[in-house]
Parts: sequence; C-alpha cells; structure tokens
Amino acid sequence: MKQFVNRKENVVTEALDGLLRTGAGRLARLDGYPHIKVVVRTDWDKSKVALVSGGGSGHEPAHAGFVGQGMLTAAVCGDVFASPSVDAVLAGILAVTGKAGCLLIVKNYTGDRLNFGLAAERARAFGHRVAMVVVDDDVALPDLPQARGVAGTLLVHKIAGALADQGEDLDTVAKAAQKVIDNVVSIGMSLDTCTVPGSPKEDRIGPGKAELGLGIHGEAGVEQVPFSDASGAMEMVIDRLAPQIGPGPHVALLNNLGSATGLEMSILAEELVRSRIGDQIRWLVGPAPMMTSLDMQGFSVSLMPVSHAEEAALHAGVAPWAWPGCRSVGEVAVRPLPDGLTPIKPMPSAHPATRDYLTRCCRVFIESEAELNALDAKSGDGDTGSTLATAARALLDAMDRLPLADLTQLFRAIGLELSQTMGGSSGVLLAIFFAAAGDASASGMDAIPALKTGLDRVSQVGGAKPGDRTMVDALKPALDGLDAGYGEAAKAARDGADRTAKILRAKAGRASYVGEDKLAGHNDPGAEAVARLFEMLAAATATA
Amino acid sequence: MKQFVNRKENVVTEALDGLLRTGAGRLARLDGYPHIKVVVRTDWDKSKVALVSGGGSGHEPAHAGFVGQGMLTAAVCGDVFASPSVDAVLAGILAVTGKAGCLLIVKNYTGDRLNFGLAAERARAFGHRVAMVVVDDDVALPDLPQARGVAGTLLVHKIAGALADQGEDLDTVAKAAQKVIDNVVSIGMSLDTCTVPGSPKEDRIGPGKAELGLGIHGEAGVEQVPFSDASGAMEMVIDRLAPQIGPGPHVALLNNLGSATGLEMSILAEELVRSRIGDQIRWLVGPAPMMTSLDMQGFSVSLMPVSHAEEAALHAGVAPWAWPGCRSVGEVAVRPLPDGLTPIKPMPSAHPATRDYLTRCCRVFIESEAELNALDAKSGDGDTGSTLATAARALLDAMDRLPLADLTQLFRAIGLELSQTMGGSSGVLLAIFFAAAGDASASGMDAIPALKTGLDRVSQVGGAKPGDRTMVDALKPALDGLDAGYGEAAKAARDGADRTAKILRAKAGRASYVGEDKLAGHNDPGAEAVARLFEMLAAATATA
Repeated sequence: MKQFVNRKENVVTEALDGLLRTGAGRLARLDGYPHIKVVVRTDWDKSKVALVSGGGSGHEPAHAGFVGQGMLTAAVCGDVFASPSVDAVLAGILAVTGKAGCLLIVKNYTGDRLNFGLAAERARAFGHRVAMVVVDDDVALPDLPQARGVAGTLLVHKIAGALADQGEDLDTVAKAAQKVIDNVVSIGMSLDTCTVPGSPKEDRIGPGKAELGLGIHGEAGVEQVPFSDASGAMEMVIDRLAPQIGPGPHVALLNNLGSATGLEMSILAEELVRSRIGDQIRWLVGPAPMMTSLDMQGFSVSLMPVSHAEEAALHAGVAPWAWPGCRSVGEVAVRPLPDGLTPIKPMPSAHPATRDYLTRCCRVFIESEAELNALDAKSGDGDTGSTLATAARALLDAMDRLPLADLTQLFRAIGLELSQTMGGSSGVLLAIFFAAAGDASASGMDAIPALKTGLDRVSQVGGAKPGDRTMVDALKPALDGLDAGYGEAAKAARDGADRTAKILRAKAGRASYVGEDKLAGHNDPGAEAVARLFEMLAAATATA
Repeated sequence: MKQFVNRKENVVTEALDGLLRTGAGRLARLDGYPHIKVVVRTDWDKSKVALVSGGGSGHEPAHAGFVGQGMLTAAVCGDVFASPSVDAVLAGILAVTGKAGCLLIVKNYTGDRLNFGLAAERARAFGHRVAMVVVDDDVALPDLPQARGVAGTLLVHKIAGALADQGEDLDTVAKAAQKVIDNVVSIGMSLDTCTVPGSPKEDRIGPGKAELGLGIHGEAGVEQVPFSDASGAMEMVIDRLAPQIGPGPHVALLNNLGSATGLEMSILAEELVRSRIGDQIRWLVGPAPMMTSLDMQGFSVSLMPVSHAEEAALHAGVAPWAWPGCRSVGEVAVRPLPDGLTPIKPMPSAHPATRDYLTRCCRVFIESEAELNALDAKSGDGDTGSTLATAARALLDAMDRLPLADLTQLFRAIGLELSQTMGGSSGVLLAIFFAAAGDASASGMDAIPALKTGLDRVSQVGGAKPGDRTMVDALKPALDGLDAGYGEAAKAARDGADRTAKILRAKAGRASYVGEDKLAGHNDPGAEAVARLFEMLAAATATA
C-alpha cells in the first residue's frame, strides 16, 4: 500500500516531530528516541495532578494531539498499534509528576495495562502518588469481561483534564475519571479495514457489508452486518447503545475512525440526532477524528449521561486544537429567503425605433444559426448558433414586455431575459454584460461607455481577455470603434473576428481544451456572431 | 462504493443540517432546500463587510465549516463538485449584505465565476456594493492562464475575514484579499483518487505512482510521477513551489485532501519544515483537512509571503472550529530523560535461611517445567512451565546480588529481576506483585498483608478476579490461608487450582480466547504452579 511515510521504523518518531515543530513552544519530547517516545507539556509546573495517557500509535490525534493545558500532561506513544514499554511510561510519569501526583489513563488492552501498571509501581517506589484508571467503554460484546477502551477515552481525558486544571486533588480527579469510565459506552462501525504502514491492506469486508463492534487496531468487528445507507448504519449502532444507557441528558462523541469524509460524518451526525435516542443527546463532541484507526472508513459513537459538573468540565477551554469542542445539539435554524430573488418585472413601454433596432439584431442571430453551428463544430460542440438563435427568438417573443423606452431598464431587462432563456456559459456572460451595462446606465453613463463597462465585467467574470479566442475579440474593438460610427465598429469587429482564426491556443472558454490543429483557419463562432451583428448595423445605418 | 450516505440527492442537505445541529445557535440556513443551500451567521448585524464564498460541495470543511465570526459570513453550497446556482448565490448575498457591502471569494472555475458573477450583478441592481475576487493559486501548470483555485482560498478567507471583522471597508478588504491571491501559490499531490457519492471509484493511479498537480474535484493530476516515500513526495512539491516564491518569511498551509492519516500528515509537516525552503516557513496552518476532495489520499501545500499585518490577521481568533490556527514553526524541543529509569541496584546482603527458602521455591518451578508446559498446551501456547523455570533459574543466578537480609528490598529486587528476565504478561504481573509488596512492606506492613497488597495490584492491572481461571485462583486463597500456616495455605491453593479445571470460560489472560471444550478437565497452569509452590513449602515446614 502507498502511504506518505518514509521508513516504517521511523513513522511514529517523524510524525511526533512534525507535531512538535508547531507546538508553539508548549510541547516537547523526552530525549529517548527511538525507544522512548513521550510528548510532554512545557507550560507545566507540577503543582497540579498530572494526567498521563498513551498506548500504541495509529490513533492520531490521540494521544499526543491532546497534550496541553486542560487535557493531558504527557502522552506515551508506542509504535503503531503496539504498547509503549514500561521504561517509556515510567519516563513519562517521572517527567511530569510532582507532589500532587499523577493519574494514568489506560485503555483496556493487556499490553497497556501491564506496561502502565508496572511503570506505576516503579514510580511509586520513588515515592510518587500514582493512580491508574482503565477505560473499557466498548460494548461490542456486552458479556465480554474485558471490554476494550475506545473513543470514550477522550471524555475521560477531557473531564479529568478540566478537574486537574482547576487544581483538584488526585483522589477527586481519579474518582471523576472512574465515574466517566463507569458510565460511558461506545461502539464502532466501519465499511473498510485500515492500512498498517508496511503491511498489505486486509480485504475483509465485502460489498454490501459493514463491520459492527470493531476495535481501533484493525481487528475484525464482532459481526459483519448488511450495509445499505447512513440511516441504517446509525440505527444498528443505536440498537447496541440504547439498552446500555439510562434516562437523562447525555453527551455524544462522534468519532471519525479515519477516512470517512466530512460529508459522511455530518450526515451521521444528523442521523444520530434524528435517531430514537436523539432527544437524550444534549451535547455533541465532533464529528471529528479523535481516536482513529489509521485510515479506517468508519465511525464510533460514545454516549454518557452528564451531570452539571461534567458539563462544565466538558466545556472548559483547552489548548489542544484536536479537541473539537462540546457543542449543544438543537434544531436546525432556518431563515426565510431574502426578498429579491424573483426580480421585479420592468414596466413595458413602447418605442418603435428601439423595437425595430432590436428586432433586426435578433434576426441576425436567427439567420446565422446554421453557419455559426457549423463554425462551432470545428472547436466546440456545434451549438453556438442554436444557443444564440434560441435566445434571439425568446427576445423577440418578449418584445411586448420590454421597457423599450428606457435604455437603463431595457439593458437590465435584456440581461434578465437572456439569463432565463439562454443556456450555458454564454447565456450567463451576456446576462452579465447587459445587467452591468444597465447598472452603469443607471448611474448616469451614456450607452456606449455603459456597454464598455458591461464588457469589462464580462472579462473579469469570464476571465477572457482580447486574444483569448472568444467573442471579446470582436466585441471589444467594435465598442471601441463605435464612437466613430457603425461603419468603423463593423470593420473593427470583422478584423477582430477574422484574427481569431489565427489564434491557435484558446485561453478561455471551451475551445481552450481543443488542440491547435483543430482551431487553425476557423473564426471563433462567438466573435463571428458579433462581427455579423455589427456588419448588419453598419449596413442598416448606411442605407438609412 | 460504500459510503455513509443515504440518497445521493440529499447528501449535501443532510450534511449541512448535521453541521447546523451543532452550530450552537450561531449558524442558520436559508429556507431554500434543495435548490438553495446557503449557510449564514446568525450573530451578524450587517454593520461590517460581509464575506460570501462557496462553490461545489465535497471539500468539507470548506465552505460551510468556515462560516462564523472572523471568517465567512455565508457559504453558498452547490451539490457535490457542482457550482451553486445564480439564485443560490444571490440569496446568500442578499441575506447578509448591508451598507458596508459584500466581498465574494470565488475559486477559479468557470461555473463558479459565472454564477457568482451574475449574482453579483443582480445584487448590484438592488443597490448593494458587491466586490468579487477570484482565487487561482494552483501552480500545477505554470503557463495555464486559468489556474484553479485550491486550498490557498483558506488564506483569503482568513485574512479578509480578520479585516472585515475589524470593521475595515470593502475596498480595503477586497484589496487585502486580492493581495493574498496575487501572492499565494499551491500544489497538490495524491496517491489515490476520490470517491464521488453514487459513482464508482476511478482506479487511475497505479502502484508506485502518485499524481502531482491535481485539482480538488477528482480530475487527473497534471502528471503522474513515481512515488517512493514522504520525503520524495514533499521534494517534488517543493520543486514546483520554490521557483514561484520570493525571499522572506512565509506562511505554509498544509491541507489534507481527505484520507491521509494523522501520521502521514505529521510526517509531511516534518518533511516540509526540513525541506530546502523550510527556513522560509515561519508559520504553519495545519496539517488539517481544510479544502478536501472527498476521501482523496493526498495533500496540498500553499505558500505565501506574509507582512506583519497579514501575520496579525492570520492569528486573529475565529469562531469556526475547522480553522486549525496558525502556529509558529520551530525546532523540536527535546528534554532530558528523567532520572530513575535505571533502578538503583539494592545492596546485596546475606541471610542463609532466606537464601535456602528462595532456592527451594525456585526449584519447584524448575522441576515442574515439563508438566506445566504440557498443561499450558491444553489452553495456551505451552510455555508457562518454561517461562517460570527460566525466571527461576535467573533468580538462582542472581542470588548473590539480592538483598536477602531486608525483606522490603528483597521484594523490590525480585520484582526488578523478574521484569528484566521473564517474558510475557506473567513476567510483568509477577514483577508488579513483588514491587507492590515491596512498597507495602516499606510502608510498614508485615509480609503477608504486603503480599496481599501485591495481589490486589495484580488484579487491578491484569484485570483477573477469582474465578477467571488464572493463577489468582490459587494465589488468593493461599495468601488468605497463610495466617493459619503453610499447611492451610497449601490446601487452599490446591483446592483453588483444582477448581480451575471446572471453569469453562476463562475471563482473563490468553485462555480467554480458547473454546470451552479445550479447557474442561485441565487445571490452569499458573494456578497449578502456585499450588505446587505452597505444597512444597507446607511439606518443608512439616518436616522441619
């Protein structure tokens, strides 16, 4: 399996150093690499009860990511999924424990219990006060006497951490930790296994299946269950947890086991809150990766009834960024849509000259439909002619509704019509062109500068500049030449349109994805349409 | 592909509702589902410049996760990898824009530019002041005129967000945003593609390959490159970025594209800081998922030179939890190992009776090696006899070094010897037994209660209670009977050991994984060893 790691034996030490680089001076490690991997707080004076936790790595951000004010004082990190040694744990204890003593928070795995347990004995032989609690929150097998410790451990870290930070004594902190352990229940579900660095990935969970009741070390779940969707998945999890919890308000911890996406985790949060125990969930921690199993595509839910004191402890501020906070669960707040989404229709008004002018413009596009489509087929999907013709027909149909006597309103109305009837990028760009021209006109600008303002806005939004092989190549010179009359404008438009046949690399629009050989010798259809429009206007003016 | 989603068409609305559930009253959505998916701040009075961003979904926590004080005022969310509609963007603008105006922060994709651009025109027609900036930080193709907007967008959100929060006017905020855009460069690398809900996963990147210069919508990278390890991966990324940056201190943003593990991301952070441009990186944002591409196993690095004003803006506090903070990059702080890891050897002392007693105890285990192994083979891996015999031989060898005349020190010394010479769980447990007994003895306890204290500690750490089919089943009754002499103790130990043959479900230790049929009729080897020890001691006492 490919992973962003270097040598397998350095995975944990390099990752810890990466974390420590940005600890902002508040984190350090003990000088015991590679055997002793202990992260400690540097903003720590031993006047309070120290909290030491840890275990195998591969559960990031647990445990080193939770070292800091308000949570852990030290994290003792083993190799991936391997318990740290007695010496490593002892080093962690000795480094941070003062007169107030030390609480070890251990997940219920034999290796961790033994190594933390023996280290505690050794530390006691130095006269240190060391208490130890063992977290066994997993309810995957309700009758298993040695339930595993999983993500519920975070609630122990947080609540004990808050009490220790407040200066409570070791007995009080240990009792609060034990109360959390007595009350918290967790279960996990996954759709895939995890990838252990240096090992092939196990392909254990088939299509249409999920594992329920899994640990955090890639071990198989207690059972394989049929998987259909997020709703069914959460229901199975709730079915296991609901019989284990009592009445009253609970905190839920929704843990990402690794690679479930943000979308999936938020959907699971929604399912959790809408579940049959949702009304018992007053607070939610997450969704967030807290106690992961490398890149496992799964989640776990932990539930615990909360007293007022525990609520306060859960809400106390902490330094570690990895703690996602404890937030109240409530209804989704919905606000009404703002006014103005349905634009006010302009008052129609008559103006025969404008009507005539606009009608002739529309006819140019309708008459050019087939030829422009053919041109577009050289560099695009052959629909530029039809797109423009359709819009032109719609505009003709709308003629009686248009405010023909008011240029400002007319620009805006054309923009609105085009945005509603003309598909694709060009429809939006022309809508922007006319809407911006209307705004400029409303601010007192004359028609030509207003149209130039519209073109500037189109360039900004569409990203097309002259030379990019778009309609801008004809429209910009046409507008620039318009002060000198339609004849000059038409000439400039035609020159611009013909130049596009020599632009072999389109830089904007769909033609930018087409090879040079297909572009050579053919005008851009949008630029050609603009040239034809101005040529018609010039001819009409000349004959008028 | 299996994902924790329900119906494909509800993925985004359900995920947003999940997010809003825990917005703690500071987030709401507009009443426009399913077409209009807009998340807005509720703690917002329109007195400041509003920041509106958004685009397709699938980039969580972007964009809705960054709505809140100090960052975005509203996020307009499209379907997965699809731009939101003009109406949706307009709704977002109108919902949050007051006299101070609104800045649209748009990633450089045609759909987003057009839809945000037209919505801006419509909002302007209402008299709103709307500015728009387009983020194009991707340097995958240095000569591409339309560079994509990727994770550098977060720096725009953060810096513009801080200025808006301080009450700066629209021009100032827009200029600061444009400056970020002008200066930030980004590139991404991935080992795998992403999984779009409802679509099969594309298998595009073969073994030993990575994609460099990829976007955030599952589109192929600019090139496939050979992949070996994290170091080489970061080097290729730096090779692309280094020519694009000038001198001076930079902020780096290290973005998880989806499913890279915490270990991988921390290793990449370490590689980034150790790279040839590492000394130019003063600040690091992340590693964290910020602008993801669903579950893509990849990362991106964004770099930007920072002025003092920008540093201040990057450090300003924000409400959204998804912002990981901007932390200073420094050396790894290393603290010396604490004293005491190498236990002080006790002063040897002579005591012939104790030496004789201890020697006889050791011989029991040595003589029982084969029989205990045979017993263990029924329920374990057949090495209990050898484990105990090896420890006993080591203890005999150590006899001259032991503090035989001082019981407290002797207990501790035996514990130390066993922890260093006896493998497996049983070695640690016996070490704990003697170490705890030594501590109890040091506190003034007599030998028998001190040993009982040791046993209590073993039970706590190992989790074994009487009836769990372990050595505790013989040791506890033996110690309880010891006040009445070795005869009573031996009888109690034998009864206890024999009872283990009837315990068909082991609850602790390795035998807990063995089926009932294999356990029936055989004593637990640890309990048997204890019984034999006390039977020898009783016989020796009787004949003495």
